[in-house]
Amino acid sequence: MKIIGVIGGSVVDKKTYDIAFRVGQLIAESQATLICGGMTGVMEAACKGAKAKGGITIGILPGSDPADANLWIDYPIATGLGHARNLIIINTAQSLIAISQGYGTLSEIAFALKSGKKVYGIGTWDIKGITTCDSPEIAVSNALINT
Amino acid sequence: MKIIGVIGGSVVDKKTYDIAFRVGQLIAESQATLICGGMTGVMEAACKGAKAKGGITIGILPGSDPADANLWIDYPIATGLGHARNLIIINTAQSLIAISQGYGTLSEIAFALKSGKKVYGIGTWDIKGITTCDSPEIAVSNALINT
Amino acid sequence: MKIIGVIGGSVVDKKTYDIAFRVGQLIAESQATLICGGMTGVMEAACKGAKAKGGITIGILPGSDPADANLWIDYPIATGLGHARNLIIINTAQSLIAISQGYGTLSEIAFALKSGKKVYGIGTWDIKGITTCDSPEIAVSNALINT
Amino acid sequence: MKIIGVIGGSVVDKKTYDIAFRVGQLIAESQATLICGGMTGVMEAACKGAKAKGGITIGILPGSDPADANLWIDYPIATGLGHARNLIIINTAQSLIAISQGYGTLSEIAFALKSGKKVYGIGTWDIKGITTCDSPEIAVSNALINT
Repeated sequence: MKIIGVIGGSVVDKKTYDIAFRVGQLIAESQATLICGGMTGVMEAACKGAKAKGGITIGILPGSDPADANLWIDYPIATGLGHARNLIIINTAQSLIAISQGYGTLSEIAFALKSGKKVYGIGTWDIKGITTCDSPEIAVSNALINT
Repeated sequence: MKIIGVIGGSVVDKKTYDIAFRVGQLIAESQATLICGGMTGVMEAACKGAKAKGGITIGILPGSDPADANLWIDYPIATGLGHARNLIIINTAQSLIAISQGYGTLSEIAFALKSGKKVYGIGTWDIKGITTCDSPEIAVSNALINT
Repeated sequence: MKIIGVIGGSVVDKKTYDIAFRVGQLIAESQATLICGGMTGVMEAACKGAKAKGGITIGILPGSDPADANLWIDYPIATGLGHARNLIIINTAQSLIAISQGYGTLSEIAFALKSGKKVYGIGTWDIKGITTCDSPEIAVSNALINT
Repeated sequence: MKIIGVIGGSVVDKKTYDIAFRVGQLIAESQATLICGGMTGVMEAACKGAKAKGGITIGILPGSDPADANLWIDYPIATGLGHARNLIIINTAQSLIAISQGYGTLSEIAFALKSGKKVYGIGTWDIKGITTCDSPEIAVSNALINT
């Protein structure tokens, strides 16, 4: 099974939300499982997109209550570990798609690159090691090849 | 969705293995999802039982490589956190079934009771707060009611 | 350097508080460093005792703000990991003294015994593997020998 | 008490090692406590510098054995949490000095900036939010003011 991670901010603008939604759709259409932080913003949009196409979604939550997950999470994993949960997403995903530019996203990108995993970025940090992609289609097709 | 946690040792005798296998079967037959530590022993037996009945299994692994999971895990969550991963199982499950008597299992029982979750025990520690059950059938039916 | 861990509940009665205070005094008089969870109850009492004798105290806090520590902590380590911080106390201490009977304390006892560390108990759980002690003096002298 | 965090790679060149050593000296001369990841490279150099000036050093280790710490750590905190230990350094330090350019360091910088803590960089990533400093003297004096 392919598991693709989607990382990005919890508060994002409409354009970014739409990109994340499209990324989620494409992951689901490819029969891959989507893993993310399970909360709002990019995470919610990607899950909503995945569920619109019948995909499966896993949310690695910062809190200790599974009910904190957004409504499009199939499997809410309640870590109770705060930001440390970011590393679980990185370890579990086979490749990552990074959307938006928060510091939390940067920490996940850094952990992913440290772990030797491929990161495909759309509108995110310009860090040595990221493969910048012009569209959700390019990012997801790359992420699938490198899993 | 109901998520039932199965906790128990990674090295167990045949009788305990068979009990865990039966617990896994019953969880799957009840359409509940099984969550466990994803490794050998009780964890493997329960997952094998669940998959024999078409159930879904989540493994919360101590290591950072999803490939460490036993072969009957559908969703291997690689935490890289060692024993601290035990708390994620407790936080995520709605109720717990404890099998066997190791110290790791005791730590999970303690965390579950501290979190106010019900623990149904078969051949495990006799700790104030655990509901001791005589069979897998009783343990699973209780666990389902209390989720 | 010897590092002794003191584990116990955050809400305790006067008798238990006094025992923990005495344990802290004895650890400090032995030139050992005291490590604990850094919060109230047994943790606070032990730290207060240690500081009364000029000892050094380390608090491994559940939250992410060092200011959450009790006032008798020299080095507040802010983990942000909730209950998972308990394992850090166990890994860092050379031996443990357990006081009182909460489930959090039980989880720490279980982790310590799983890690092969000695646990000296005063008025705590009666678990196979714990060495029950009749007084703070006996507990601390044992803990020092086994570090 | 002031606690300054020093973050940087575990394998670094001579020039970087010397910078970290000088940073450690200056922290100790300022009566501040140094916290770091407790291992080799920048961490070792900074601790060695701090101990050369009679300072106090805390190491937040990735492994579960305090004996893994470098020889200049006074208080080895054994987390057993792997890279997740990075967040503990960030939460505990009042401000951070970042030296060198690895991805692990980048993840710590990102977490620090996300937490609203000041990061003073010498020869490290050029990330929005870092204050770049030309010398150990400037970095440490800034870090002390902002604690």
